[in-house]
Amino acid sequence: MAVYFDHNATTPLHEKIFEAMQPYMGSVCGNPSSLHRFGRLQRQAIEQAREQVAALMGAQSSQVIFTSGGTEANNLMVKGLSMDTAVQRIAVSAIEHMSLLQPAAEVGCNVDQIAVDGQGLVTQESLKQAINKETVLVSVMAANNETGAVQDINKLAEEVRAHDIWFHTDASQIAGKLEFSFEKTAVHAMTLSSHKLYGPMGAGALIVDKCLPMHSLLQGGSQEKGLRAGTENVPAIVGFGMAAELAAQELIERADHVRVLRDALEKELMQLGVVKVFSQQVRRLPNTLQFGVQGFDGETLLMELDRRGFAVSSGSACTSGKTEPSHVLKAMAVPNQLATSAIRVSLGRANTMAEIERFIEAMKQIIGLSNSAVMMAANL
Amino acid sequence: MAVYFDHNATTPLHEKIFEAMQPYMGSVCGNPSSLHRFGRLQRQAIEQAREQVAALMGAQSSQVIFTSGGTEANNLMVKGLSMDTAVQRIAVSAIEHMSLLQPAAEVGCNVDQIAVDGQGLVTQESLKQAINKETVLVSVMAANNETGAVQDINKLAEEVRAHDIWFHTDASQIAGKLEFSFEKTAVHAMTLSSHKLYGPMGAGALIVDKCLPMHSLLQGGSQEKGLRAGTENVPAIVGFGMAAELAAQELIERADHVRVLRDALEKELMQLGVVKVFSQQVRRLPNTLQFGVQGFDGETLLMELDRRGFAVSSGSACTSGKTEPSHVLKAMAVPNQLATSAIRVSLGRANTMAEIERFIEAMKQIIGLSNSAVMMAANL
Repeated sequence: MAVYFDHNATTPLHEKIFEAMQPYMGSVCGNPSSLHRFGRLQRQAIEQAREQVAALMGAQSSQVIFTSGGTEANNLMVKGLSMDTAVQRIAVSAIEHMSLLQPAAEVGCNVDQIAVDGQGLVTQESLKQAINKETVLVSVMAANNETGAVQDINKLAEEVRAHDIWFHTDASQIAGKLEFSFEKTAVHAMTLSSHKLYGPMGAGALIVDKCLPMHSLLQGGSQEKGLRAGTENVPAIVGFGMAAELAAQELIERADHVRVLRDALEKELMQLGVVKVFSQQVRRLPNTLQFGVQGFDGETLLMELDRRGFAVSSGSACTSGKTEPSHVLKAMAVPNQLATSAIRVSLGRANTMAEIERFIEAMKQIIGLSNSAVMMAANL
Repeated sequence: MAVYFDHNATTPLHEKIFEAMQPYMGSVCGNPSSLHRFGRLQRQAIEQAREQVAALMGAQSSQVIFTSGGTEANNLMVKGLSMDTAVQRIAVSAIEHMSLLQPAAEVGCNVDQIAVDGQGLVTQESLKQAINKETVLVSVMAANNETGAVQDINKLAEEVRAHDIWFHTDASQIAGKLEFSFEKTAVHAMTLSSHKLYGPMGAGALIVDKCLPMHSLLQGGSQEKGLRAGTENVPAIVGFGMAAELAAQELIERADHVRVLRDALEKELMQLGVVKVFSQQVRRLPNTLQFGVQGFDGETLLMELDRRGFAVSSGSACTSGKTEPSHVLKAMAVPNQLATSAIRVSLGRANTMAEIERFIEAMKQIIGLSNSAVMMAANL
């Protein structure tokens, strides 16, 4: 049986969530914009999901704008904010997901990068350096998809608010893994992705304070308060809602489960001598462990692990295929050779200690082949 | 049992399509961008769906760009075409879906409207009048969602190509209902929507000739050749592929089935004396019948039919809720009072002659109440 250790890339659909979606893929049919009973049932299902997502994140349901996923939510945030690009600027952390960095680079305004320290954290000093009077938007992700490093969003939001700047946080990775609240952190906008918390693909959300001047990216319909045209993906939205409800119920239990496994894995890996764990000194997502293996190539390690039945990532899934070190590790000033040896293990609710033990054995085997093909590949 | 007569708004998910999707909502999990075996299985599933969609539409699979739906595909076409908006123009038919018209209005270039005749057809003369040397893109939908009127896309494409202009057609409504080919019509780009042909919500496509200079709307990932960033909605794409395959297999059978029902319905309605069928003189989708009922209000009729268990539309679902006559009927110069009385019946594979007969009875009942609340509401 292959072992799935790549939950930050995507999670398997939770069986209860599939059950919740099933009626909307069979007996219940209709376009939510239709006025008849079929349409009204679909509309109700969407509104219930909106409540569920809002409840998980400590937001009001009226603040939830459903999108096709986290990438669209990040694009909507950056490109949908009404601004005067000739004079206004945005500031984004250097370790944001590409779906935030690339739209920022293309929106037409000046973009300032917020540096992170060697542990991957944005400090108040680096934040202050990156903003000025022209800054209208700051975006710092709540937890990083690669290292799992958790930012102190409360403190950063306070600083940003003091300067009358909008503050957005990509909460795709933290949602459902640690407690995190829209209201308590006092951010203005927040990105979520359904398939990162055992929900279906094809749904995400931008939670957005009503005071933000936003316009839609996709036009041609009044769905989602005019901020997202297009027939709503009802089954996916229903699943996203159920995913949020279950995540709220099981939050602590899930975190405890993966933390025990992750800590055991980390301890064992450290004993191998050649492993360096990233963001080890700071608060991290309980399911995430990213590490470099001195003298090895991450992609080769990944394929060797795959051959042995373990699915891990060598970086962010969205940029895999490229041989460059990840921009996250680069921003943390990790030396190139160590950064390109990176492996990310991201655990989930169904993983077991037996799987961790088998993984350690596999790692030992691979690393033991120090004069073999793996080592050679690393030196090419 | 309520009767669903609103298949142009959305179709119920075909049971075989649900079966095809199910593994991707359970045992098979992974991000298609991941390099490990889980990711590769997802990637393969997407590529198979691409072949299936291409096969239905007579296109090459490499021309298929998956999106979250038809609205996104139309937005991608209009806003993703690289053009010099200061000098270049686009021409769109007056009866396009809002997801084409609104992006066109916002893209920043001049937009010329292509008039339609009283039957809702774009003529070669009206096309010629709307284009000039600055025109870079023409968009005319293959079949209209309201009237069902089918354009002669071959002839229009020939004219457009003769002027070295890109030609896009929104084929969301014709796909799976009548034979229609990307290659044979010689269009440059084509929009499709999965949930209009018994596939799941959350998937669509822009089929696009490689010579078109396109850029993405959603950035931050290299998915779909860099033209659509974001984790692919694998189950929806798999379902879309199966929907295309089944539509190809059952095309004639489905068309024949609904045509018999639609023709019977039309004949009966005409005998009521107060009914006017739109686009009656031209080739229409076999499942679609839009008609006005003299002296009645369409929305009131819709609600009266809903009360009696029939789900129909009073216009395009995406713009329902507004009291204005539809822009389609307006463009056809249908008098306002008749246009606001419009009802659209759009049939599907599970509808029966018994349902048609019950519908006729209901219509007679409602229309018979000529001095009642319905009539009064119409006069308000």
